Amino acid sequence: MKVTDEQWMQRAINLARKGEGWTSPNPMVGAVIVREGQVVGEGYHQKAGTPHAEIHALQMAGTKALGGTMYVTLEPCCHHGRTPPCTDALIKAGLKKVVVAMVDPNPQVAGGGIAKLRAAGMEVVTGVLEDEARVLNEVFIKQITSQRPFIAFKSAVTLDGKTSSYTGSSKWITGEEARMVGRQLRHRYDAILTGIGTVLADDPLLTTRVPGLKDPQRVILDSRLRIPMEAQVLDTKSAPTLVFTGEIADGEPKAALLAEKGVEVISCPGSEGQVDIFSVLKILSEKGITSILIEGGAQIQGAFFDRELVDKLYVFIAPKLIGGHHAPGMLGGMGIAEMGHAVRVYDLKMDQIGTDFLLTGYPEFGG
Amino acid sequence: MKVTDEQWMQRAINLARKGEGWTSPNPMVGAVIVREGQVVGEGYHQKAGTPHAEIHALQMAGTKALGGTMYVTLEPCCHHGRTPPCTDALIKAGLKKVVVAMVDPNPQVAGGGIAKLRAAGMEVVTGVLEDEARVLNEVFIKQITSQRPFIAFKSAVTLDGKTSSYTGSSKWITGEEARMVGRQLRHRYDAILTGIGTVLADDPLLTTRVPGLKDPQRVILDSRLRIPMEAQVLDTKSAPTLVFTGEIADGEPKAALLAEKGVEVISCPGSEGQVDIFSVLKILSEKGITSILIEGGAQIQGAFFDRELVDKLYVFIAPKLIGGHHAPGMLGGMGIAEMGHAVRVYDLKMDQIGTDFLLTGYPEFGG
Repeated sequence: MKVTDEQWMQRAINLARKGEGWTSPNPMVGAVIVREGQVVGEGYHQKAGTPHAEIHALQMAGTKALGGTMYVTLEPCCHHGRTPPCTDALIKAGLKKVVVAMVDPNPQVAGGGIAKLRAAGMEVVTGVLEDEARVLNEVFIKQITSQRPFIAFKSAVTLDGKTSSYTGSSKWITGEEARMVGRQLRHRYDAILTGIGTVLADDPLLTTRVPGLKDPQRVILDSRLRIPMEAQVLDTKSAPTLVFTGEIADGEPKAALLAEKGVEVISCPGSEGQVDIFSVLKILSEKGITSILIEGGAQIQGAFFDRELVDKLYVFIAPKLIGGHHAPGMLGGMGIAEMGHAVRVYDLKMDQIGTDFLLTGYPEFGG
Repeated sequence: MKVTDEQWMQRAINLARKGEGWTSPNPMVGAVIVREGQVVGEGYHQKAGTPHAEIHALQMAGTKALGGTMYVTLEPCCHHGRTPPCTDALIKAGLKKVVVAMVDPNPQVAGGGIAKLRAAGMEVVTGVLEDEARVLNEVFIKQITSQRPFIAFKSAVTLDGKTSSYTGSSKWITGEEARMVGRQLRHRYDAILTGIGTVLADDPLLTTRVPGLKDPQRVILDSRLRIPMEAQVLDTKSAPTLVFTGEIADGEPKAALLAEKGVEVISCPGSEGQVDIFSVLKILSEKGITSILIEGGAQIQGAFFDRELVDKLYVFIAPKLIGGHHAPGMLGGMGIAEMGHAVRVYDLKMDQIGTDFLLTGYPEFGG
């Protein structure tokens, strides 16, 4: 039975996923070299600064690459980054054909790699499982095309849409399995961001606590530097922590105490004593953060939503009701005035996790 | 291939469903008579006061019922109601065996029918597809065992749990298909209840507007009799309307005007000028209402939730975000203080309808 291009590409995508959480700021990439219907080499990009997927696959194939076909999830690079251009290696190995899922959105590549391969006489096919490849690298695409981090929201709500009771009680909304999935999500992102309200209410660790998964950078928005010195999130043994605050007085003693704990404090004044969110994102971007998972309360998530700063949603829905006019929902802030102008969420998917549901989707802000 | 008892019973349940929306205050019942592997008679209960399912099936079978097996979704009645006891007819027809999905929860029957059939020498098997039969007649079971109407909530919410924007804009949350399904739901219930807030905001008709489906009794809770005389729900040509109000002055002219339109106004004073919900339910029950679909705003639904008066939920979730601290959710009221005491929702099911989702489930209040 002949294996289709789509099936080989799916194998390359599955390989690419092995790098999830580790490749930032690079994309996840997988490559498979096939000759005479057999895999002769394969690999994936493991970490920025280390060889690309194509190089791993070529090394494994050795001389068997000659006359073979490479399936690769992203256009091979043609520029000198931290590693030499992959296109040169492909040409040198004598591949006959290259099948590419998607063109590299990086303006330094953007079709240049494909052109170089074709110029060398290689057959190049593009667009095989392109949609899947674009989902695979949604973070990379957002960051490379907008120079802003990809922002995902994570919320856990009751069936009536509440994130806590009117007294602030929120432990636990979802079951054990959903909470585990929620912690695993953290691994996929460069940073986890929350507000001081959540720190004061829940004292979260914001770590993954799953063997083999990474703990991302923790970011706290705390305009008045109210964070308690004993907050768990200030224990930087598990993961680094960054606190954004409003204007703070020179020599503010708490900032010095936090610095002693290894916690970086950055002043980022916005209007009305709040932290300026756009400045926060700019600073995080400059620090190499390409993706942020926001696990805030209604106020933080509302502030990001009102600024149209959400690329992806993870909403865990628990089969329970809590009620209460004063119990908060997932989005505070101002909101949109007209239902007709509500933000559409695309590619909404629903999965059952234990007794809970997880909805995943992509909001698309107009204009 | 032999047809199993479960398959015959499923056929009887499907027949019973044909009576949905028409049998109140009676249950939906379906019956199939099988002899030598062939259906010789079948029927369903069509309307209170008309023959029961068993009688329809026996009439169709005639003398072919002799020695046959009847599959019936509910224990045959042994009491004289508006029609004579079915047990007598079954015995007279000479059936050999009766397979019953569930024992009749009506205290006037409650196993008495089965005992009578067995005493007559008939083989009786019970509990075949019992769970399905209990769902089929969830309204009847609730009403006959508690003397209270079965209460279902219908809400349409955005993915962030809001039923309108902060300005009150709510048209439309869900798409055309989901709204059609929502109107069809009305047919299944004896009454549709909403609050004056929804009447003032949306001016709904609260009718089904689907050919072949019925329009249930409309019930409005309007403590201060603020309903505008031109409200669409006051047009009683399509369906009867009942307005519950707080204490009203003798000779209140608006009440007289409403009476002229054929709208019944009942004073049902509770605390703080509100309509007393328990009294409303008692009055509706006395009027023969066995099931109510509540399509209210946060205030009405919160008031019922706080009183633990919800048996079933229909929550339509639209793939959109509206945001807003002041935008209402599906449940207002006081709510529950501790997340650990949140009300569990059982048998939660999720269906996709167009681009929307419909979650259906059964809240179970403790104690």
